[in-house]
Parts: sequence; structure tokens; C-alpha cells
Amino acid sequence: MATYRLDLSYDGSGFRGMARQSGVRTVQGELERVLEQVIGEPIQTVVAGRTDAGVHARRQVVSFSTDLPVDEAALARSINRMLGGEVVAGRVGRVADGFSARFSAVSRTYHYQVLNAPVPDPLRRHQVWHVSDTLDLESMNRAADGFVGVHDFAAFCRQAEGRSTERHVLSAGWDRHEDLVVFEVTATAFCHQMVRSVVGFCVDAGRGKVSPDEVGRILADRDRNAGRPMAPAAGLILWDVAY
Amino acid sequence: MATYRLDLSYDGSGFRGMARQSGVRTVQGELERVLEQVIGEPIQTVVAGRTDAGVHARRQVVSFSTDLPVDEAALARSINRMLGGEVVAGRVGRVADGFSARFSAVSRTYHYQVLNAPVPDPLRRHQVWHVSDTLDLESMNRAADGFVGVHDFAAFCRQAEGRSTERHVLSAGWDRHEDLVVFEVTATAFCHQMVRSVVGFCVDAGRGKVSPDEVGRILADRDRNAGRPMAPAAGLILWDVAY
Repeated sequence: MATYRLDLSYDGSGFRGMARQSGVRTVQGELERVLEQVIGEPIQTVVAGRTDAGVHARRQVVSFSTDLPVDEAALARSINRMLGGEVVAGRVGRVADGFSARFSAVSRTYHYQVLNAPVPDPLRRHQVWHVSDTLDLESMNRAADGFVGVHDFAAFCRQAEGRSTERHVLSAGWDRHEDLVVFEVTATAFCHQMVRSVVGFCVDAGRGKVSPDEVGRILADRDRNAGRPMAPAAGLILWDVAY
Repeated sequence: MATYRLDLSYDGSGFRGMARQSGVRTVQGELERVLEQVIGEPIQTVVAGRTDAGVHARRQVVSFSTDLPVDEAALARSINRMLGGEVVAGRVGRVADGFSARFSAVSRTYHYQVLNAPVPDPLRRHQVWHVSDTLDLESMNRAADGFVGVHDFAAFCRQAEGRSTERHVLSAGWDRHEDLVVFEVTATAFCHQMVRSVVGFCVDAGRGKVSPDEVGRILADRDRNAGRPMAPAAGLILWDVAY
């Protein structure tokens, strides 16, 4: 049995998310279809980050094990040819037994892109959230600071009954690049819809609709209804995974 | 009769080009459908640049005249709502009678984006030409210099029988922005497929497949077969139109 690591990027706009689901088109489903065809047996993959419908990846990591021989360069070419440029394999390589794209990861980094301009951009419409209001970057960064550290993110997650919503955010901050206002956040792991909820709050802080100093209280209250409207999926990109 | 100017941006990947053609989905066709619905009579538009299938616009200019009243802000909102973000109206305004988006324009500027990276990018696949070879920017700029001035571009145009292929290129040059190598070219007007043919030549010069000093001879020979393979449509963007 040999274990392989596959680094992928994808355009999430044509997929119902990363995770395999019968009957719908997902990145994992399409990828496993290609792997089975190329390797010659059904392959179960493990993924670093379960991105939602419409969410993209600059670097997603996938692992799988098989007894059959794998030509790594040929596999990358097959993925790129068979998935029509929507999913691109950057690197395929053999790794130590026991490596898991999910459990071996020490942190995940996401970017969220807000297009802060008077008029929307048709060329970037699937990759940004268009906000025409003036945004105060300082308030957004004060809000972001409030999320750094170990907190219970229940107010900023879609709750899964009985599962812990405690997470460790290593860094979070906003930066302006021309007409884009970009959020970069790194955590050991994220709970469901956490980045988009945090972005929704920060943007409301940037618009002056909410005080950035409220973060601590909302986290402590664990009240999902105090969270802000989630930012749309389109602006979110799984940026990197560290091992 | 009042004349209006409309500034548009669009994602060309879902259209069979700008120019109206019966039976196929074009930007002009979709736009005129909206204009007729909002204004209340069939509207004939005039466009600054006839972009091909898959070519985008950051700023395309359209003009039209009508006797009926036009609420300019409402018209922009209707376009943005009815064309689903693929076509975005930036500005609608009344202009002097006799203004023509096409004939009043003094120059057009195009950008062409080459993604010069080892691996393609799924998020930009409709907006770049992916070239993984090392590109020598100096050779590309030497080739570009050869196109500046008044020349007969027959070798770099799809010929229209009996039409002049003399054009005046005001400036042309390549620049690197991170992983993008971007061509900016301004001319009073372009003939059909001229930018993509010029880009094809420059990229071959950047790869060392052709000498940049050949431009003068190929222009003088007017030999279409000496032109290089055209660059794909996806990387081309109508960037601006000057009046």
C-alpha cells in the first residue's frame, strides 16, 4: 500500500462543493472518477478542507492510498485533461504511510476577496463579493483582531449538534490591493461557514453598522443570531494548507 | 431625437462576440433586447470595438438615439439586473447629437494577458493564455516596438477583400505583473484578429522561436502565412476607448 498527496486548485463555481455527495457534481466526486479510471480501482480520497458550493481553492490537498502502481506525472496530466481546466493538479507525489491530507494538516489559510468599487466587475463576479459602500479598513482590522486566539466560535458557525465549536485562529487581517479588500485568516481548523460569518461581521464593522469591539461579547454569548449575515460563497478561496 | 452613450464591461466567455448576429447569443443582441424592453421601441446600437467570441471588455462604448424618454440611472440598473452580471453598465449619459461610439472614437486600447507560470490557474482560465515556457520580455518588447507607427498589417489581419489593412499603432509594450505578462496596445483602429496575431508573434519572439527583428520584413511582405499562430481569444480584453 502506498500513499499519495495531490495538490489541487479549482474554480468552485461549477461545483456543489468539495465533498463527495451522490447525485451532485462535486470536486471530490469528479476527482475520484478520474482516479478510478486512471489507476484502475475505486479510490477513496481524504481532503484537507471541505469547501462549500461556489468556494474556490488555490491550494487544496488530497491524499489517497492504493496497492496499484501510480505514474505520478501521468496522473497529473490526466486530471488536467479530464477535468477541463476547472480542476488543476499542481503536484502529485508519494508520501510517508500514515499521511492524511486532513489529519496531518497543522493549519489552513483562507482568503476572502471583497471588490470595493462603485461598479461590479463581470470578469470577477464568481470570485469576489461586490461591496460599493466605503469601507473603513481600520475598523475591519480591529474586528479581525478580536477573532485571533482560542475561542468558542458557536456564534460564527453553523452548529453541528454536539460537536465542539472551539477553534484556534492563528492570524486574521485585512489588506487593500487596488480595488480589492482581502481578508487572510489562518487557523488550525475552521468550523462550518466560519470564514464567511467572520467576513460578514468585519464588513459590517467596515461599513460602520456594528462596533468592532463587539466581537468579544458575541463570542462569549455564543449566540448564532448575533452573528452577521454571511458573506457570499464566491469571494472565498482556500489559499493554503500547512503540514 | 436624443443620443446616449453607454459604457459597458463584460465577460465575453458566454457570448459569440459583441456584434449582433441572428440566432446566436451576442453582447449587442442581448443589450438591444434589454434596451427595447426598457425604452419601448427597437433600438439600434453602434459599438466602439467589435470584439470576437470569448473576448472581454473592461470598457466598451455603445451609442444609440431615440425620441422616447430615457431614465439613465434606471436603464443602467435594468441592464445590470437583466444581464445577470455578465454585462455591467458603468455609465449611461446623454451626449451631443452626432456622437457615434464608433466614428467619434480616436483610439482603442486592448490588453492581452499571458499567464506565465508552470501550472494553469482554474480561476483565470477564461481570461488568460497559459504559457509555461520561459518568456524573454526584452525580445517581446523589441517585437512590439516593430509594430508601432503606420503600417500595412495585412500579414497580421484576417483579410477583408478590398478593405485597407493600413493601421496606426500609437503604442505597444509588454509588462510583467507577478505571474501575468501583459500586452498593452493602442491604435486609432484595429483590423480583424490583429491584436491576437501580434501577440502570437511577440510570444514566439519571447520563446526564442522567431527573431523580433523580423517584424519589419513580415509587415513589408504582407504575407498572412508569415504571421504566427494567433493567440487564443480568452486573454484579450478591450481595455479603453478614447474620444
